[in-house]
Amino acid sequence: MSELSPYLESAAKTIDRMIDRYFVDKTGELNKASAHLLAAGGKRLRPAVVMLAADAVKPGSSDDLLQAALALEVTHTFTLIHDDIMDDDSLRRGVPTVHTKWDMPTGILAGDVLYARAFEHICMVNAANEAKVRAVTMLARACADICEGQHMDMSFEHRSDVDQHEYMEMVRKKTGVLYAAAAGIGAVLAGGTAVQVKALYQFGLNTGIAFQIQDDLIDLLTPAEKSGKDQASDLREGKQTLLMIKAREKGLDLSKYRRDLSPADIDVAIKELTEAGVIDEVKKIAGDLVAASNKHLSLLAPSKERQLLMDIGEYFVTRSY
Amino acid sequence: MSELSPYLESAAKTIDRMIDRYFVDKTGELNKASAHLLAAGGKRLRPAVVMLAADAVKPGSSDDLLQAALALEVTHTFTLIHDDIMDDDSLRRGVPTVHTKWDMPTGILAGDVLYARAFEHICMVNAANEAKVRAVTMLARACADICEGQHMDMSFEHRSDVDQHEYMEMVRKKTGVLYAAAAGIGAVLAGGTAVQVKALYQFGLNTGIAFQIQDDLIDLLTPAEKSGKDQASDLREGKQTLLMIKAREKGLDLSKYRRDLSPADIDVAIKELTEAGVIDEVKKIAGDLVAASNKHLSLLAPSKERQLLMDIGEYFVTRSY
Repeated sequence: MSELSPYLESAAKTIDRMIDRYFVDKTGELNKASAHLLAAGGKRLRPAVVMLAADAVKPGSSDDLLQAALALEVTHTFTLIHDDIMDDDSLRRGVPTVHTKWDMPTGILAGDVLYARAFEHICMVNAANEAKVRAVTMLARACADICEGQHMDMSFEHRSDVDQHEYMEMVRKKTGVLYAAAAGIGAVLAGGTAVQVKALYQFGLNTGIAFQIQDDLIDLLTPAEKSGKDQASDLREGKQTLLMIKAREKGLDLSKYRRDLSPADIDVAIKELTEAGVIDEVKKIAGDLVAASNKHLSLLAPSKERQLLMDIGEYFVTRSY
Repeated sequence: MSELSPYLESAAKTIDRMIDRYFVDKTGELNKASAHLLAAGGKRLRPAVVMLAADAVKPGSSDDLLQAALALEVTHTFTLIHDDIMDDDSLRRGVPTVHTKWDMPTGILAGDVLYARAFEHICMVNAANEAKVRAVTMLARACADICEGQHMDMSFEHRSDVDQHEYMEMVRKKTGVLYAAAAGIGAVLAGGTAVQVKALYQFGLNTGIAFQIQDDLIDLLTPAEKSGKDQASDLREGKQTLLMIKAREKGLDLSKYRRDLSPADIDVAIKELTEAGVIDEVKKIAGDLVAASNKHLSLLAPSKERQLLMDIGEYFVTRSY
């Protein structure tokens, strides 16, 4: 995986430059609000997946598809801006959220502007028109699914009986489909065959789900100094994550942790979940998803880019923040 | 104009059937919220413009483009759902607004779902892929402009010095560009030449702006029994409409009407604005826009559809509700 970090860094710089050019260097208050979160950094993982998928299908093709890579980051950012309004979160990527820095109406509109721009940028790609139409359709379906996933996620807040099937469906929609679209759009625009497009779509879907499961593990296991987020906030809020669901299946009662938790309390919870085998089981589910995604990738010819995609999957479930 | 009414009725029925098929007959709470306002009726004017523009360019072509006509209505509805949240309006088309019947997060997501579906439906059209890509780009740009227009409109609420230029720019973006996109998309998808597409785009833009100006006149002049809306609400709220701007230019002080107004008070206001020539001036601006839009249409070959488009322009500025 030693080549993954420099690749991701370089891809992120490319996208950052495009963000500056198309979004940051604009006048008007609404444009500033739209650019705010986009310019606040981020790993630019979805654009990297677009580019790698394209190059895995046709070496060197990603140079023509940077507008689509940008479109995926823009789409992701629009969903974050709207999610922050719904969840009334005040901080994201170390900066105030858009509706906090401006106001709720401006937050809705800033997200809506990015939503439009994403489709505009997909159409700016240098690719066959048929491929562009398919890419637009894939992006549109992903967006509708993401809304559905966010709606499911919010509905889970009022429940304590969410099962694994429902959880996986929610995560598939909320996180999986955008990685799936990223890989699928890269493949389609690079002129990939139906088999290649499907393989990359499935790769993205599986790794995207694994990414979210790992996020839940990080919430519990990684101290705030390292993750930059409150440790064990899911536990404190009684959130229906795969960890909580698996614990419930084993008869563990985690409701006792729905309160302010000291570092020692968190250690007790981790110990309880570890001894019951919950953490290993959840890790295994994430690992199995990455193994499945690699199987999809094996339908492609071996290449440096295919290996980097496999590395991304591995990175998704081994990262600790 | 005797042929316009039956045409619009028939076009609306076609779109209503598609709405039933693609939106109403779906399960799930978020789908129901997305379909709520779409199914609450409406004149379906933008879809009619898509169809007429297409047939004016290539007779009979609209049959293949109904998905694009639907997409324009879906886009319009998504903007209404989000606007209602921003303005916190509770009623629309005689039914509770989405965020009132459900909640604010569901309102945001219901709008976002329709946003995605609009692009999906544009791609479902039976047309050349190049035309579809251009149509997607036109729709995306219109959506970004609409956001900008809504943002301007909201910013006007805190001002009393908006000038005619700013007002026209706001209305162009908030209302004009979607009619422009409707006509332009119909023309592009029907295989129109650059001249035809531009002419129809400009037709839509001018009539769309005229439509909004007429809306402001209706607010003042049409009794609630007829319009279904509070009469003179703009006057009561001190809204920066073209009427108010023109009145200010003439040195009239309308701030005295920023209070509860009886029917007699409204009559006094109408008399004052009429005698100062404000109402005639505003009517002339709307009429000139329609005349300009007809000039654009004269670049097309004469046809029944071209005449119906001219009739729509005429209808926009003569309707009294």
